Amino acid sequence: MANSLVDQLAAIVGRNYVVAEGEDQEPYIVDWRGRYHGRSVAVVKPASTAEVSAVMKLCHAQGIPVVPQGGNTGMCGAATPDGSGRAVVIRLDRLNKVRAVSALANSMTVEAGCILADVQKAAEEVDRLFPLSLGAEGSCMIGGNIATNAGGTAVLRYGPTRELVLGLEVVLPDGTVLDRLRRLRKDASGYDLKQLFIGAEGTLGIITAAAVKMFPRPRTSAMAMVALPDIDAVLTVLGRLRGTVGDRLSSLEAMSRGQIEVIAENVPDVAIPFALESPWYLIIELTDTFAATDLRTPLEEVLGEALEEGLLTDAIIPESVAQAEALWRIRHSVSEGSKRAGHVVSHDSVVPLENQADFARNVEARIAEVAPAARIVMHGHIGDGNIHVLAILDRDTPDIPALAARINEVVDDVTASLGGVISAEHGIGITNVGRLGRVSSAADLSLMRGLKALLDPNNLMNPGKVLPPA
Amino acid sequence: MANSLVDQLAAIVGRNYVVAEGEDQEPYIVDWRGRYHGRSVAVVKPASTAEVSAVMKLCHAQGIPVVPQGGNTGMCGAATPDGSGRAVVIRLDRLNKVRAVSALANSMTVEAGCILADVQKAAEEVDRLFPLSLGAEGSCMIGGNIATNAGGTAVLRYGPTRELVLGLEVVLPDGTVLDRLRRLRKDASGYDLKQLFIGAEGTLGIITAAAVKMFPRPRTSAMAMVALPDIDAVLTVLGRLRGTVGDRLSSLEAMSRGQIEVIAENVPDVAIPFALESPWYLIIELTDTFAATDLRTPLEEVLGEALEEGLLTDAIIPESVAQAEALWRIRHSVSEGSKRAGHVVSHDSVVPLENQADFARNVEARIAEVAPAARIVMHGHIGDGNIHVLAILDRDTPDIPALAARINEVVDDVTASLGGVISAEHGIGITNVGRLGRVSSAADLSLMRGLKALLDPNNLMNPGKVLPPA
Repeated sequence: MANSLVDQLAAIVGRNYVVAEGEDQEPYIVDWRGRYHGRSVAVVKPASTAEVSAVMKLCHAQGIPVVPQGGNTGMCGAATPDGSGRAVVIRLDRLNKVRAVSALANSMTVEAGCILADVQKAAEEVDRLFPLSLGAEGSCMIGGNIATNAGGTAVLRYGPTRELVLGLEVVLPDGTVLDRLRRLRKDASGYDLKQLFIGAEGTLGIITAAAVKMFPRPRTSAMAMVALPDIDAVLTVLGRLRGTVGDRLSSLEAMSRGQIEVIAENVPDVAIPFALESPWYLIIELTDTFAATDLRTPLEEVLGEALEEGLLTDAIIPESVAQAEALWRIRHSVSEGSKRAGHVVSHDSVVPLENQADFARNVEARIAEVAPAARIVMHGHIGDGNIHVLAILDRDTPDIPALAARINEVVDDVTASLGGVISAEHGIGITNVGRLGRVSSAADLSLMRGLKALLDPNNLMNPGKVLPPA
Repeated sequence: MANSLVDQLAAIVGRNYVVAEGEDQEPYIVDWRGRYHGRSVAVVKPASTAEVSAVMKLCHAQGIPVVPQGGNTGMCGAATPDGSGRAVVIRLDRLNKVRAVSALANSMTVEAGCILADVQKAAEEVDRLFPLSLGAEGSCMIGGNIATNAGGTAVLRYGPTRELVLGLEVVLPDGTVLDRLRRLRKDASGYDLKQLFIGAEGTLGIITAAAVKMFPRPRTSAMAMVALPDIDAVLTVLGRLRGTVGDRLSSLEAMSRGQIEVIAENVPDVAIPFALESPWYLIIELTDTFAATDLRTPLEEVLGEALEEGLLTDAIIPESVAQAEALWRIRHSVSEGSKRAGHVVSHDSVVPLENQADFARNVEARIAEVAPAARIVMHGHIGDGNIHVLAILDRDTPDIPALAARINEVVDDVTASLGGVISAEHGIGITNVGRLGRVSSAADLSLMRGLKALLDPNNLMNPGKVLPPA
């Protein structure tokens, strides 16, 4: 059976593009974090939508589960097959053409396997911006970004991935190609079918191509890093910036003092050019598409006033690109520093912005109750209501899985009580299935399961992911 | 049966809020254009989500169709019951509370029956903008705007209604309340269920409340009206504006010469302060949230250069608010002027922007073939790829319905051949059901019908609307 399947897949894509079990499957069956080790009867690499469709038809006819995979950089194991060895992994990296770019319409059509950095580059070549930007951009693929509804640092200004998508081409579980690759800014022509597949993490179909938005490129920017006495001050300063600079606010990244201490202790080549005397730090970036716009003056005015009123305890406005990069370096060292500090139980909650201060306070208090030895630090996209809370445990803590589950529970309870959800930008994958089930209403679950049964009645599309079991 | 139903509805909402057949139902059973005259066993006006849910439970249990209705200003009859007299109309105007406004988070939570102008006002009160703006804003309701995914003149800058929605509260056909009223900017927590109901025109559930975005308010603007030798020049000038002023381009409204002539002939109090010597006219508006930004200089530079190159044949930059308003007056008189000129067969096609010139040319040629006597004029949101094409017929043209159907066919064929769809912003309703069926693929139709059967297995939600019959 397995051999004959490999032959049949080879007949579609060529034997060079099938990696059978026993061959070098390692890059495809282990997730990026190394937390899930799966097995696959065959990894197959189609080169076109037609080949994806043929592979899906074959698997559908034989009742074989499939796991779509882009750059395999997801945070929640959504692209990793389970341990049964039954699934075919469909790796999309050969669907990597930029099909069309229109600077006039500010849109481009790209295949699912295009690496995010290459999509950004294709936009730059026509003097436009594709704003999605995240740590893995050198290896993640746009299809996976869309399937996860990925976030990143530019959501504050440009919205999440979902809002960047104009149209999709999707192969359905039975191999049917659903062509909704519309390059339209307005569409009131019936149900918007593409929305089903954005953020569904490959459980309803395989995204093979997307039409996405581009934007005018920013031509000037201003930046500051400030220290604040508490999280309420962070939100007050955010409110004032909003009132003054409006949509020029393009990044607002917060770090707790503890988070920066973790970096200072564990990433020796990162310089912290200030004394760590305040509980919160904030990187603020403004951008404008008019090169001549003076962003620094309004930024200095808001910050100067805030300093006088004690809303800030310190402010650095870099005088050079190198200085600005050194400050951003701190933010970009968060993952590395935290990973070296111990076993990280990380969270991706998002709450309405006006509840962000309560969230930070309550979460810290509740985690301290259930895990008194945990080091609790926070960082993230505070302008979006999305602060990542990390509970860092000593690696020799007994029964880490049970403690992590307990920590997740209290974080999720605080999140839900404040109108939030458990994942802002990382997705559900396999990691968060149980948590999603715990916080979802019966009506939510019933409709989610109904959609799954409608689109994928045989449960062959990325089974076990996203959807809490009944 | 009918009497007992009225009693049962009255037990939920109070007898004052049930309008039985034979009572004054006229405002609720005829559409705004006066094209559809329906009947209703009872018009019911719930005051809360709980009352909507109770009404839905009752109708569900008894197999009674329901037609949700907001301001009853739709263009395609989506809120009008059919002639059977079986349906209950659920009028939502008593769900009119602004539940919450957060200037900090740039979000507000409003009930479905809030009039659009009141939603705009609530945003202004906290110095923010709710950008959705359309002709009916004084009487249309936000729930209906969302159910139709309405467009308007601000889509170019702020996106269609769908992109303004953060969360929804929806009553499902069986009365279940689906609470997805999330006020979140990012959400990667499973399927985005709210998307199903946006643009579904009440065929899958009833929107009872919405969390929507607000934006910083523009503080300065610049405007021009220009004349152009052809539609290619329109697109070239648009491209140059995009390159220079980026996202400051907030409106770009085109009118063909014929469209302005129709206004000049039929709306005597509108002044046309220029000779009608060019085939195309364009209103350009730039806005900025910094009051001090000089918008006029870059606008004059782009237009000055275009004039020299012959891309423009004339340009007016108003010197006062009154002058600017007089120019906008021309655009706002389009409906009135066209309606007085004859029987209007109007279209709401949208194509990718780069195909807009071919669209205009091909549509004009094809309509001229099938309806040589028709006066063909165009106006609309050219920056979005959404030009409304009007074929104006003499009122005594024989068999107007058959000719209109033939005109629709050729317009739809051109639209589809250029990658467009038949409705950009008006919706499908009852008017366009057949046309949607004609241009949709089998895969599209199958999935749309599957969604309808999943959410509304008894076909009680706004039956006959949107979904082409099998």
